[in-house]
Amino acid sequence: MSLTRDLTRLIREKPVTERDLEWASLFVLDTLGCALGALPSEPARMLKAVAPPAQADTARKAFYLGGLSHILEMDDLHRDSVTHPGSVVIPAAWAVAHDHDLGGEAFLRAVLAGYEACCRVGMSVGKKHYRIWHNTSTCGPFGAAFAVAELIGLDDDRTVWALGNAGTQSSGLWEFLAEGAMSKHLHTARAAESGVLASFLAREGFTGAQNILEGEKGFYAGLCPDPIPEAVTAGPDRAWQLITTSIKPWPCCRHTHPAIDGAIALHAEIAGEAIAKVKVGAYRAALDVCDRPIPEDPYSAKFSLQHTVAIALADGRVDQASFDADARQRMAGERKKVDVELAPGIEAAYPESWGAEIVVETASGRRLSAARHDAKGDPGNPVTATELSEKARAQLIAGGSSPARADELIGAILALPGNRPVRSLGLLELAGDARPHARAAGSA
Amino acid sequence: MSLTRDLTRLIREKPVTERDLEWASLFVLDTLGCALGALPSEPARMLKAVAPPAQADTARKAFYLGGLSHILEMDDLHRDSVTHPGSVVIPAAWAVAHDHDLGGEAFLRAVLAGYEACCRVGMSVGKKHYRIWHNTSTCGPFGAAFAVAELIGLDDDRTVWALGNAGTQSSGLWEFLAEGAMSKHLHTARAAESGVLASFLAREGFTGAQNILEGEKGFYAGLCPDPIPEAVTAGPDRAWQLITTSIKPWPCCRHTHPAIDGAIALHAEIAGEAIAKVKVGAYRAALDVCDRPIPEDPYSAKFSLQHTVAIALADGRVDQASFDADARQRMAGERKKVDVELAPGIEAAYPESWGAEIVVETASGRRLSAARHDAKGDPGNPVTATELSEKARAQLIAGGSSPARADELIGAILALPGNRPVRSLGLLELAGDARPHARAAGSA
Repeated sequence: MSLTRDLTRLIREKPVTERDLEWASLFVLDTLGCALGALPSEPARMLKAVAPPAQADTARKAFYLGGLSHILEMDDLHRDSVTHPGSVVIPAAWAVAHDHDLGGEAFLRAVLAGYEACCRVGMSVGKKHYRIWHNTSTCGPFGAAFAVAELIGLDDDRTVWALGNAGTQSSGLWEFLAEGAMSKHLHTARAAESGVLASFLAREGFTGAQNILEGEKGFYAGLCPDPIPEAVTAGPDRAWQLITTSIKPWPCCRHTHPAIDGAIALHAEIAGEAIAKVKVGAYRAALDVCDRPIPEDPYSAKFSLQHTVAIALADGRVDQASFDADARQRMAGERKKVDVELAPGIEAAYPESWGAEIVVETASGRRLSAARHDAKGDPGNPVTATELSEKARAQLIAGGSSPARADELIGAILALPGNRPVRSLGLLELAGDARPHARAAGSA
Repeated sequence: MSLTRDLTRLIREKPVTERDLEWASLFVLDTLGCALGALPSEPARMLKAVAPPAQADTARKAFYLGGLSHILEMDDLHRDSVTHPGSVVIPAAWAVAHDHDLGGEAFLRAVLAGYEACCRVGMSVGKKHYRIWHNTSTCGPFGAAFAVAELIGLDDDRTVWALGNAGTQSSGLWEFLAEGAMSKHLHTARAAESGVLASFLAREGFTGAQNILEGEKGFYAGLCPDPIPEAVTAGPDRAWQLITTSIKPWPCCRHTHPAIDGAIALHAEIAGEAIAKVKVGAYRAALDVCDRPIPEDPYSAKFSLQHTVAIALADGRVDQASFDADARQRMAGERKKVDVELAPGIEAAYPESWGAEIVVETASGRRLSAARHDAKGDPGNPVTATELSEKARAQLIAGGSSPARADELIGAILALPGNRPVRSLGLLELAGDARPHARAAGSA
């Protein structure tokens, strides 16, 4: 027996519907928006200097796109595996589909398969793994390798070799966080590239360990103090893991999202009336990380429940501009009106549910309230295709695309289930050509 | 404090003599002989298909050469760190010196520095690390990154970032051994490449964790149950670690080497007389791995004390042909005369000394004996420059070079201290152009 062999069979026997392909195209749109939106940032300039896409081989293209995708921290999140599968799987699949001139349908099928491999390995690593290791970085290579194996038509044996060589390349330590270093973008870059290399080598006959996960000197032995091997193949008939992946609608801490969602809904009801007082009820982890009454820079504003709720109530939306100096100054008085506190019911439901409740009192004494049981963008509270397109459009424009080019690209990505060749979208040219802006618009 | 910062200072303050550069050129010759000698093998064909050097960026060139260097298992070994520093550091340094058109002296200085970083990190990982992790693969990125940092002139701060991002890419599990899969070559390829990427990114300003080794979520926390952090900076005035690195004279298990060395010496004394009986005394680990009276394929012949001693006594030398079907057939009777046993004195001195003793009785009743306290090629029993050139020449010719081209390349490598530009040696062209042979000559 071999867990990666079982996983390979499970994925290859899983039926793919038209609707699954449409879902996948939404996640592709989201990831590529994140990637191209990051182009004006300093880390993107650095990655491009080291891996200029025009001269890059396929694995290096995956490296570049993989790095780009994770810079804005706006890419998708699979809660049960604590991975960002899109930032690794989609870059690898895109680079291969581009260089092999493949069609959108094959590409989307590979994306579904790649998410499945990344998320299922991620669900098996155990909680202690995450204390030291960056799950996206360690589990991502499995997802990237699987997606590429699908695209280049590896049989089951070679796919298992590829997964073996993906796992033996798994790396990514959280230590960079202590100083806020940039390694996180390198992690997704490397994970995407590792998967491409592993599958390309397997195509040539390069062998790998078939028990890379469960073997005596394998991934669990080396990196996982409390693994859950059975999670790799549990519930084979569940929906594709891609469909249970969350999308981030706003460029700020995920813990602020349910409160922002409620605040945006209340914005319309308030209808411009002055606010007297706001109460936000949240779960403990949200308070631990995001009870921040006076944020002093864009990054801390993204981790402030007071700021995010105030600006969502005032503007009815949240975007990159919501955290800049003007916005922070404009909200100085409004933030003072926001009290945050522990809400026992919300806390009891966490972490299965990431919820929030808000009560607003207006100057005229009206009381308005909103409650959320899921973070906006979770499968239980999904973003619509329209909302997602708006997010991507804003990112593409911030990344240097014209509005017309952005709309064209969004349309083409959402039409991928119709099997248009991936290369014809011109994404890599866009990612390679865009000039860095004078100031990094997107990086926190 | 930061261990990698301390290591950076230690290396940069260490004086380099003319003699150190000459030593370094010997190790370069050895590694490149191993790399080019592997060209006809199947794994080399696979690596070249994925990373064709003519189209490769610098990091991908390092990947290709890094993979090539380790295929024959004939590359150098640093005992105290259990790493093969040459197979990672030299490919990274060569690719960068080639693409930046640098001179031999700068290149050799970078090689000394890179070995030092790889070996010193390797001496700090502790014994438990090696049970799961392939030290060359996990510590190699530090060595490759440091060598590249020297070549592209990174200051101390950026070198520390580079080491941080080298360490967060560290990977390489032993699980592939269970099935004899090919991952080992991928490990050195990836380690060499990781170092290049880390230092190239650092040049652009890409930050990394300065406490990557000792930090709470760093390398030791993730990969080392019993680390020895103080080993990183112990004995700053010792000779360069490169000088304490062992070279492998023969293409077979290192545990057979002291016995082979003794047997080759006795070959001359036997002078063609028939042998009646041979006794080989060895340490326990050698018996555990290499007591193999009837080897049935080239690989197991390389792990047979009986076969290696028999053929060294008969032929006075050991090379790749010593393990093929003809040689195994020819030695069938001779192997039966060889008894291997534990020698208490040899065992007591292991592992500081890898020794052996041999007693031969000839048909006429003469008794001849030889004893060795070190394996041939260890610093206490070094190979000469002439022996090393012969090894490299045989490898280069096996790899497809003409004898004239081999001699020219050997001469040019040994002249690197005179600062000839690295690119002018044409090594990458040789590594990229050579055609695979019909049969893999070198791979076991």
